[in-house]
Amino acid sequence: MKQKLKVYKIGGGIIDNSDELRLFLSDFSKIQGNKILIHGGGKGANQVLKQLGIEPKMIEGRRVTDKETLDVVISFYAGTTNKNIVATLQSFSCNALGLSGADANAICGIKRPVKKIDYGFVGDITAESVNTSFIDILIKQNITPVFCAITHDGKGNLLNTNADTISACIASSLAGLYDVELHYCFDKIGVLKDVNNDDSLISEIDSEKYKELLSKNIIHDGMIPKLKNAFNVINSGVNSVILEHPKNLNNSIKTVITK
Amino acid sequence: MKQKLKVYKIGGGIIDNSDELRLFLSDFSKIQGNKILIHGGGKGANQVLKQLGIEPKMIEGRRVTDKETLDVVISFYAGTTNKNIVATLQSFSCNALGLSGADANAICGIKRPVKKIDYGFVGDITAESVNTSFIDILIKQNITPVFCAITHDGKGNLLNTNADTISACIASSLAGLYDVELHYCFDKIGVLKDVNNDDSLISEIDSEKYKELLSKNIIHDGMIPKLKNAFNVINSGVNSVILEHPKNLNNSIKTVITK
Repeated sequence: MKQKLKVYKIGGGIIDNSDELRLFLSDFSKIQGNKILIHGGGKGANQVLKQLGIEPKMIEGRRVTDKETLDVVISFYAGTTNKNIVATLQSFSCNALGLSGADANAICGIKRPVKKIDYGFVGDITAESVNTSFIDILIKQNITPVFCAITHDGKGNLLNTNADTISACIASSLAGLYDVELHYCFDKIGVLKDVNNDDSLISEIDSEKYKELLSKNIIHDGMIPKLKNAFNVINSGVNSVILEHPKNLNNSIKTVITK
Repeated sequence: MKQKLKVYKIGGGIIDNSDELRLFLSDFSKIQGNKILIHGGGKGANQVLKQLGIEPKMIEGRRVTDKETLDVVISFYAGTTNKNIVATLQSFSCNALGLSGADANAICGIKRPVKKIDYGFVGDITAESVNTSFIDILIKQNITPVFCAITHDGKGNLLNTNADTISACIASSLAGLYDVELHYCFDKIGVLKDVNNDDSLISEIDSEKYKELLSKNIIHDGMIPKLKNAFNVINSGVNSVILEHPKNLNNSIKTVITK
């Protein structure tokens, strides 16, 4: 029987709030068994860019990562944020190890091809980009990998990469070795029938239920991409995807999505 | 018989020159067998501090690492510098893994006690601070650890730590498991009889020779701390300490110091 593995993704909101982040990391450190953490960027990098007088580059409403922006993003994601998370987890007796995709070639993607827009130093990855054997070695040593949202292309380029995508690819790639639960921690307590009412939480969704909710127009537009992504991940072999607020890590307030 | 392990330390000069750094990393990647790289800071962090309007804090001529300075140092050493070195080594087919001392608790020191001066977030470490079994696991996986000059105290604090000291502690701590060579790459080609004449290189120094050189007043004052450190490291079990210029990695122009 395969061992369990829990993969957690946290995003901007919590990373920008040091008290909430600390509480989350304390809860995360108490989770028993194999686990991985992936963290997005937060607004800190934008603040540094602003302080350094680097204007955000946008083309057709999409952010472009030029070389100078990349340098700040690397320093903030792989440096400040990643190392502070790792040091805090160590203080809670969780044996964390911070990683970018370049480290031990953990995630080797490609620089996004230039079509209509040149997004600059942005990485595209798939589950095949993930060095599962390396991650497996760490997990077997009771080490908790902590990934920032930076990958590389194997040609010396570091690449800014979407943290949700990294989480999905890591979860999918390890599904052959482990029974994987993928947890997306975000600013809601889960999927709500009424986005303004936490009492309307839907605790469980499977593909049948998803069809029903869609046909009844119950799901808020903003949640549809998250649910589509969840079912893609599940169809790639991941056992379940859980949508939850980071404060609810160790209770049952969440939406559990299964096949 | 123990396997060989080569530990290299590079410092500011080369890190500030991207062309020279690239050449060094290319040479480093060609070195066969077990190896570790430790890199100091360079002037990049000072430039970022200046850009952000943070004044260097000095007390009695010694740099003090306050919280603001620490944040920049972490972002630059553990982020920018470490990840770019790792990505470049990966492009040269060297399976590098970037580490701070917090990662997998690789180096756990103490925050320097406040006596006359409060140095702030500065780490003091010994060979016992090093997690040798973790580093050994990496080496056995043909992974090349790449350390930046940041350690932690296990209580959640990241600490700015001298890269020469980190190198000496890593080399000493692994001397029980490996036949260790510690290479200090610096701005000279080795120990010179005449500091202005590269033809005066002393290729080999043992403790007998060291005494003789000292008694004849041949060694330049600036080299004495380096040689003292070298003999301390050797007395702790390291086979040899090599002083060399980073451009001479793969030739015989260097000073080899042995017991």
